Amino acid sequence: MIVIKIGGGEGIDPRRTAEEIAALWREGQRFVIVHGGSHVTNELSEQLGHPAQFITSPSGHTSRRTDPQTLDIFMMAYCGVVNNRFVEALQAAGVNAVGLSGVDGGLLRGKRKAAIRAVENGRTRVIRDDYTGTVEEVNASLLATLLDQGYLPVVTPPALSYEGEAINVDGDRAAACIAVALKAEQLIFLSNVPGLLRDVTDPESLISDIARHRLEEFDSFAEGRMKKKLLGAQEALDGGVGRVVIGDARGEEAIHGALNGKGTVIG
Amino acid sequence: MIVIKIGGGEGIDPRRTAEEIAALWREGQRFVIVHGGSHVTNELSEQLGHPAQFITSPSGHTSRRTDPQTLDIFMMAYCGVVNNRFVEALQAAGVNAVGLSGVDGGLLRGKRKAAIRAVENGRTRVIRDDYTGTVEEVNASLLATLLDQGYLPVVTPPALSYEGEAINVDGDRAAACIAVALKAEQLIFLSNVPGLLRDVTDPESLISDIARHRLEEFDSFAEGRMKKKLLGAQEALDGGVGRVVIGDARGEEAIHGALNGKGTVIG
Repeated sequence: MIVIKIGGGEGIDPRRTAEEIAALWREGQRFVIVHGGSHVTNELSEQLGHPAQFITSPSGHTSRRTDPQTLDIFMMAYCGVVNNRFVEALQAAGVNAVGLSGVDGGLLRGKRKAAIRAVENGRTRVIRDDYTGTVEEVNASLLATLLDQGYLPVVTPPALSYEGEAINVDGDRAAACIAVALKAEQLIFLSNVPGLLRDVTDPESLISDIARHRLEEFDSFAEGRMKKKLLGAQEALDGGVGRVVIGDARGEEAIHGALNGKGTVIG
Repeated sequence: MIVIKIGGGEGIDPRRTAEEIAALWREGQRFVIVHGGSHVTNELSEQLGHPAQFITSPSGHTSRRTDPQTLDIFMMAYCGVVNNRFVEALQAAGVNAVGLSGVDGGLLRGKRKAAIRAVENGRTRVIRDDYTGTVEEVNASLLATLLDQGYLPVVTPPALSYEGEAINVDGDRAAACIAVALKAEQLIFLSNVPGLLRDVTDPESLISDIARHRLEEFDSFAEGRMKKKLLGAQEALDGGVGRVVIGDARGEEAIHGALNGKGTVIG
């Protein structure tokens, strides 16, 4: 079992991987896909006059400010367009894909943050109408049922809070949680960078291998979204996943590349 | 087995039925929900500067003009917001609902119309970049698998063409097709009218009972969306469904009312 997370940043169209996924699927490889949708969400937010806002926590993590209207826009982008169009492309390529948000069947469950702290100009502010949280539980039985029947699950945030509210969650950490729940051998993160870089401005500075017990030492090279990937990688490895690869979604044969160790391999 | 279609017209919020559905579900009643989303789609189209257009076929049926951008907006509304928010409300009410578009698992399959004819000012025009069609096949096995595992399927257009393209299909006729495929005893249509009216301007003119073999005689009372409901009712009855009820989604206990024969009962 492999879990493949395809990012939603600028320049990534998950549909480009459909033929490659179909080939892997026909070979009998079993996997679950998780995808993002942040760039489509940003564009749509702009078009709807409710531009994206990002907040930084006191610990330095960045996340999307998710008021109820933003969550609607988030669902339109992640579930409505990106998920459906990706499933459509997979179906056209001959894969019987099924799209699921984390709300469906309580697939991704977690705690909603009752209050979040945001640092602005050096001051910390508390926000209470935010719908964000972190995935803690995965309904692995739903995924297993679909896989057993020959369906490829294509999973996207949001998740479901314990109170039954849709919540924005980080897709990378959700993918890690799914990988642990399915006892996956590998977790692949594909996004719009070549992997973890020593110097974020230099694509040639790729860190190609990290021993799992040394992962923390590399924290300082991660900025923005990459911090979440390293956190997800750590959670996956701690949960029993054999190997995590952070690879590039943009080239040809992106998935095969990552499976063959192209990118940053942690394990 | 009952199939319940909840319309997407103005004034209907399917979430209002969540508690009622939860009570029915707890009683052990098994059913599948199908919903629309036309009003949300119209509003979103307007906000995105791509206002909804409707075309009338030479036979007098009205349908949404669905160019590729409209289909994206359609997916945002039907799948992204309406489906997810409805599933969220059902989850909050204690029902383990799973949202599915017709694209997922090839749940709803049909033929895309290669060219559609539209009547405008008495002249017929041919449109070729439209993504619409009619559901002909239902993946009943996917619905049965979910129901067997205790999940309530919540289904929404679009459907999938035989070429693997997402297509806009009529939700009422899709619900009829699902009812036939699941050998349902009843098909319930809930929308923002009390039922079939003799005079569309007079809500008191409800036609409360129609014998199945006389359904065609009532065609002349149907306008707009109601034509599709009568067509769906005919298709359901011809396919072996015992009873079709066209009821009102807007009151309290809308589903119980329809199950108890409130509205237009055809059977």
